[in-house]
Amino acid sequence: MSDLKKAFSDLKNGEFILIYDSDGRERETDLIIASEFMTAEGVKRQRKDAGGLICTSAPSRMWKKLDLPFMAELLAECYNAHPVLKGLAPNDLIYDTKSSFSLTINHRKTFTGIPDADRALTISEFAKFGKKCDSMNEAEAREEFGKYFRAPGHVHLLNSQPGVLDDRAGHTELCTAMLMMADMFPSATMCEIMGDNGRSMPKEETMKYAEKHGLVFLEGSDIIDAWNKRDKD
Amino acid sequence: MSDLKKAFSDLKNGEFILIYDSDGRERETDLIIASEFMTAEGVKRQRKDAGGLICTSAPSRMWKKLDLPFMAELLAECYNAHPVLKGLAPNDLIYDTKSSFSLTINHRKTFTGIPDADRALTISEFAKFGKKCDSMNEAEAREEFGKYFRAPGHVHLLNSQPGVLDDRAGHTELCTAMLMMADMFPSATMCEIMGDNGRSMPKEETMKYAEKHGLVFLEGSDIIDAWNKRDKD
Repeated sequence: MSDLKKAFSDLKNGEFILIYDSDGRERETDLIIASEFMTAEGVKRQRKDAGGLICTSAPSRMWKKLDLPFMAELLAECYNAHPVLKGLAPNDLIYDTKSSFSLTINHRKTFTGIPDADRALTISEFAKFGKKCDSMNEAEAREEFGKYFRAPGHVHLLNSQPGVLDDRAGHTELCTAMLMMADMFPSATMCEIMGDNGRSMPKEETMKYAEKHGLVFLEGSDIIDAWNKRDKD
Repeated sequence: MSDLKKAFSDLKNGEFILIYDSDGRERETDLIIASEFMTAEGVKRQRKDAGGLICTSAPSRMWKKLDLPFMAELLAECYNAHPVLKGLAPNDLIYDTKSSFSLTINHRKTFTGIPDADRALTISEFAKFGKKCDSMNEAEAREEFGKYFRAPGHVHLLNSQPGVLDDRAGHTELCTAMLMMADMFPSATMCEIMGDNGRSMPKEETMKYAEKHGLVFLEGSDIIDAWNKRDKD
């Protein structure tokens, strides 16, 4: 079985996979799981084995229906009221033209929101809500969303670009594309793998981690190739 | 030397201390350091030994001068443009009436912002900027801030209440009070200590961690007592 096929199968079984973006971009490997399968053990693994920021992606059909803003755009809407925000504009990102950050959220049934069980609830329920929301109209979806979630919270949402990999090749879109090609609900939860020297763990070491733990390791270019060749019917 | 005096001394030496809020509140112990002393090793220790969200506090004189909003209030200002945000209002927090979350930031000299060295730069430079900003006027401080930082980013800012512990007894204010009483610049960086069972680590276990590593363990009530008895001249 090819690595790509094993990755689809692992994602469907609620297992982690690793995705390295590319030498020309962030040069980071993320430890990734389909959000619907997130558990407290999964959050613990991300914080212990990866150590970056635990972030959950939303496909464009979901964030558009819910009107979940890109944080950079929301801050831009507040420039008049808070001119300091204009000075903070992220207009100098080296690795891309824009960040995917949207809101931070907690499920309303969490207590503080940060323990592993709390973050797992927020993340898995977010994906379940995303599925339900596919059959709702905008007004209904927006009203229902607030019954289950609050913002700000402890889980970072990432908005995936509408054209997915046609628009951007960040981890957000690489994960979204993988889940779409696996015919799953495209919300992934990802966390950057840190090294012991203050930097991200180099690709050679994250490949060893993958091998040691029997996880699939993919490079962004593998996913982009599959995306470009996919059945578009 | 009392635990409190040792804590002041440790904070001045750039060492970590532990603060448990209270049985009646979050029931969480945070691993805490003065932001000005944050290093890549310090971030690594917070993510490995604590595992929660790494957050950096700003005293009220700093966030007011810079006009750094509480995130909940910023979202409230956008209710008209984005009604979904009103539904997400955090009006049901169990442990307090409001959260301290402000913006997320990165120092402009970071690359992605998430590696330990990146977060350490953002955090230590934020504290250094806070000190400098004490001698600037509002317009100057706001303009300068944007030269060094961008938002959104990977470090969560927490706004401390103006009355500190007279207003709120969260980790944000407990840390701010400790640094004020230690005559230091009151920006702390804190991270909740997670247990292995999906919950926060119970107080009894975080006390053992403190003992094992020679760190001071304080309860919120110890700090509130000292705060109420402090020399207010």
